[in-house]
Amino acid sequence: MTATAEIARRFLETLEARDWAAWEGLLAEAVVYELPQSRERIRGRSAYRRFNETYPGEWHLTPKVIIGDEHRAVVWFAWTLSDGGGEDDGDAQAFFEFDDAGLISKVTDFWPEPYEPPARPDGLVERW
Amino acid sequence: MTATAEIARRFLETLEARDWAAWEGLLAEAVVYELPQSRERIRGRSAYRRFNETYPGEWHLTPKVIIGDEHRAVVWFAWTLSDGGGEDDGDAQAFFEFDDAGLISKVTDFWPEPYEPPARPDGLVERW
Repeated sequence: MTATAEIARRFLETLEARDWAAWEGLLAEAVVYELPQSRERIRGRSAYRRFNETYPGEWHLTPKVIIGDEHRAVVWFAWTLSDGGGEDDGDAQAFFEFDDAGLISKVTDFWPEPYEPPARPDGLVERW
Repeated sequence: MTATAEIARRFLETLEARDWAAWEGLLAEAVVYELPQSRERIRGRSAYRRFNETYPGEWHLTPKVIIGDEHRAVVWFAWTLSDGGGEDDGDAQAFFEFDDAGLISKVTDFWPEPYEPPARPDGLVERW
């Protein structure tokens, strides 16, 4: 496993454990966190921690696929969320960039939702 | 760039070029294509090609980030779609697995849509 992939794995594990000191230790102080779907941006490690600590509901994250090269990494993970509206779950992806010290300098998350696909030719597609 | 990342790049480029012969050359005959959000599964290179050739609307794909290790790769790409309903665009991700011959044996796509985020503490989040 590359160093970037290992850091990405620890990012998910420390987040799931709410081990905030260990989680912050992976991040550059000026880390930028972006969510393109909601056009949200959080600047800095402290704000990013507060964003996660105060996120509404009880959430859990489990890594499924981790890929890293010299400069970047991605984690495809399963999530569950329990809140006043009930239980929900799905898959999401976090992309990571790193600074020269090997700390995470940028995180970009994607949270895809279920959708109904367009009609296609008969027999082409299975549904599960 | 790793071999897997290079294949992932060529996958996107040949798809964008509708160079179906070159695109098929990257795929194992028994490739499986899955879209977890719509719970769609397509089995085999021929069906997968027909799925793409007959996809409704005029679509374009531009790679943004490509990451590969020895066994897997991911492409984060920008897409545009023009159809009877107008123009739409966004970012999506395709994850790849490879067989022992270096051909793509599995593709899993995610197509995240915009959403409105939950309210958060004042000053924590910028919107763009």
